[in-house]
Amino acid sequence: MNSADLGRRVGVPSTALFTDQYELTMVQAALKAGTASRRSVFEAFTRRLPEGRRYGVVAGTGRVLDAVENFHFDDEMIGFLRQQRVVDEPTLQWLADYRFSGDIWGYPEGEVYFPGSPLLRVEGSFAECVLLETVILSILNHDSAIAAAASRMSAAAGGRRLIEMGARRTHELSAVASARAAYVGGFDATSDLAAGFRYGIPTVGTSAHAFTLLHDTERDAFRAQVDSLGRGTTLLVDTYDVAEAVRAAVEIAGPELGAVRIDSGDLLLVAHRVRQQLDELGATGTRIVVTSDLDEYAIASLAAAPVDAYGVGTQLVTGSGHPTCSMVYKLVARAGSAEPDAPLVPVAKKSLGAKSSKGGRKWAARRVDEHGVAEAEVIGTGAVPEELAGRELLVELVRGGEVVAREPLEAARERHVSARAGLPLSAMQLSRGEPVIGTEYA
Amino acid sequence: MNSADLGRRVGVPSTALFTDQYELTMVQAALKAGTASRRSVFEAFTRRLPEGRRYGVVAGTGRVLDAVENFHFDDEMIGFLRQQRVVDEPTLQWLADYRFSGDIWGYPEGEVYFPGSPLLRVEGSFAECVLLETVILSILNHDSAIAAAASRMSAAAGGRRLIEMGARRTHELSAVASARAAYVGGFDATSDLAAGFRYGIPTVGTSAHAFTLLHDTERDAFRAQVDSLGRGTTLLVDTYDVAEAVRAAVEIAGPELGAVRIDSGDLLLVAHRVRQQLDELGATGTRIVVTSDLDEYAIASLAAAPVDAYGVGTQLVTGSGHPTCSMVYKLVARAGSAEPDAPLVPVAKKSLGAKSSKGGRKWAARRVDEHGVAEAEVIGTGAVPEELAGRELLVELVRGGEVVAREPLEAARERHVSARAGLPLSAMQLSRGEPVIGTEYA
Repeated sequence: MNSADLGRRVGVPSTALFTDQYELTMVQAALKAGTASRRSVFEAFTRRLPEGRRYGVVAGTGRVLDAVENFHFDDEMIGFLRQQRVVDEPTLQWLADYRFSGDIWGYPEGEVYFPGSPLLRVEGSFAECVLLETVILSILNHDSAIAAAASRMSAAAGGRRLIEMGARRTHELSAVASARAAYVGGFDATSDLAAGFRYGIPTVGTSAHAFTLLHDTERDAFRAQVDSLGRGTTLLVDTYDVAEAVRAAVEIAGPELGAVRIDSGDLLLVAHRVRQQLDELGATGTRIVVTSDLDEYAIASLAAAPVDAYGVGTQLVTGSGHPTCSMVYKLVARAGSAEPDAPLVPVAKKSLGAKSSKGGRKWAARRVDEHGVAEAEVIGTGAVPEELAGRELLVELVRGGEVVAREPLEAARERHVSARAGLPLSAMQLSRGEPVIGTEYA
Repeated sequence: MNSADLGRRVGVPSTALFTDQYELTMVQAALKAGTASRRSVFEAFTRRLPEGRRYGVVAGTGRVLDAVENFHFDDEMIGFLRQQRVVDEPTLQWLADYRFSGDIWGYPEGEVYFPGSPLLRVEGSFAECVLLETVILSILNHDSAIAAAASRMSAAAGGRRLIEMGARRTHELSAVASARAAYVGGFDATSDLAAGFRYGIPTVGTSAHAFTLLHDTERDAFRAQVDSLGRGTTLLVDTYDVAEAVRAAVEIAGPELGAVRIDSGDLLLVAHRVRQQLDELGATGTRIVVTSDLDEYAIASLAAAPVDAYGVGTQLVTGSGHPTCSMVYKLVARAGSAEPDAPLVPVAKKSLGAKSSKGGRKWAARRVDEHGVAEAEVIGTGAVPEELAGRELLVELVRGGEVVAREPLEAARERHVSARAGLPLSAMQLSRGEPVIGTEYA
């Protein structure tokens, strides 16, 4: 049982099959060759940010810890692998006993990152580390993409409320992880009940056009909603004529009406009109929620509009143009023999082109200028230079197979706010640009 | 237990919380107003295809049927909703008893679709149908987006083998659904073990750079792999120097070497060189697998290259630029009272702009020309014109709450091949264009 979750059953019984077949066949070949137990260091990192993005946001770390803890092959899975002849009997025996017993360090959740940042460093035997590749990348690539979009949207929204409403636009469990990542990135609530159930994220709801259309008149629908849900409810006012709907809404709910939602039309124009009308009707405290294919640019363009909350769906859960990150999981060092104290040798792919990578077990630190503003992501192997002491980014997450760094989701959410605030101001620009600080190799 | 699955535990115990909160509050208000039991018809459709796409592919129908069957609120869920005060006690009671008891018709999985196609038609009481909105849309929007990308890739690949390798680029369960949708869209296999476990999709694997780097030399690595996995294995030849690696590979495995994988560089050029080298070494039967950020355009550009199989990751699982469809789930007709035989009244949102929709319970049929080639998607309400008899697209999926249309995944895969073959040839063009047939309202 994870202390950070609500003790609720979720997901598959084990994460072990969220794995590419080649991880298992590599384990088989390495077991036979006697190289499976060579001490190894894998790192997850990205060679570049999505085009035009100025920073990345680490999200999913908490889910990675759950995944590592729940990574074990039960009898049914072993039976499947045997039946499909994926690997041989000695490997099946090894898999049946598998529990990750190594160490993991990484950027804490909510932290920002840049090209080359060693987001996660996994150490142990080759076999135990290589098995985790696919599930670690699935989680980090997905969740970080959503959190990055959420962070841009929350920067654009200023202090206004942001509601995640994208469940219907993505896979039903991706939706739950998206709500979680959006919360890390600065969203305030979600419409997704499973995200509330699983992660304790505040859930909210408004009303749909279907509810209005179910009733004989719009007024009947409003009356039904207010009767049952109270005056604090949010009425959807764009099924027929907005001005008429706003009039009816205030007439039925009174000036205590909680909010109205606008889901179509020119939101800037309509929001102004509706605000004026609400004020004229005395409903000065009634809030305006807008939805309808919003992204960070649309949110920014509504900065001057009398909008109280944004509901964001499609563009959030699809990462606003970048539905995945390009994180990879690479062997960067390994021992030259299976001896436990054999020294680590840095390794790296040497092929031409953009896919080469830097060998060696890495540390990372963020150098700041005299005002405390970040000026470089410094990455190195070996000893950390004295001037960077206290600025190191990796924290211990798993020690000898035991998760040691669980935290409430709020902690990641708060960390993101302060990490982003430590970047140069240009990080908040929505326009396309280069990473806001450079990556330096010490 | 679903007859179409392998009887394996997967997913959450129930799909009922993959639901936006407003579905539940609307049910509460409708229960109180006495309108919850009005007979209603909801339809899932899309107003447009993703920009430039010529056809859509229905995928996820089988998963929708599973989701409907498993949509029930267990005690823990009810407890959560009570604790969070999402809805009142009478509504909790109603939810605790909830089982969908209505009817569902829809386009069969693998079928192609166009703007306006009524992909799923859900009939029952308002309350029982509205609850299913989010999970139905999650599944159809996600799975159809992946299947559409897969279909374009399979068209571009001609008869060459396509392997889904995108698990690491998307949410771990989205990956499983993606492998399933890709299979429907024409892929042959997946690297994702969970997809093999859950859906019986053939799984395959090659090898990673980490395996080569683990060993003291590339030759050691190749020897280890061939020793353990046999000569039929796929060796990765681009860790250091490709020509040297190919020479070593054939030397170690002999001309019976199964395949080599190339994962970087100018694939067209490298594939030609590798083929020539393999042939010179007598390994004329050794296949060439290419991977590395492939999409349908890259696949098409390799048509003249001596490539035997494509491994596709990122671009497949992110829908090749369109990670979601824009399907919506709208109330199109409902009774004017709660009487079981009250006639259905068509309803539709009337707001200005692109978000209006057509009311009424719909049928759809594909009209063909004298050569049997599709020429229009015809949609109507009321009686189907005689000339379209036998060309109707919706099939019965659920009758009185019971799933009546389970089928093996192969059936959907085969249906897609024949549905696509029935379209005008321009459907296969990868360039941006309009939907290949128009939508007509009868």
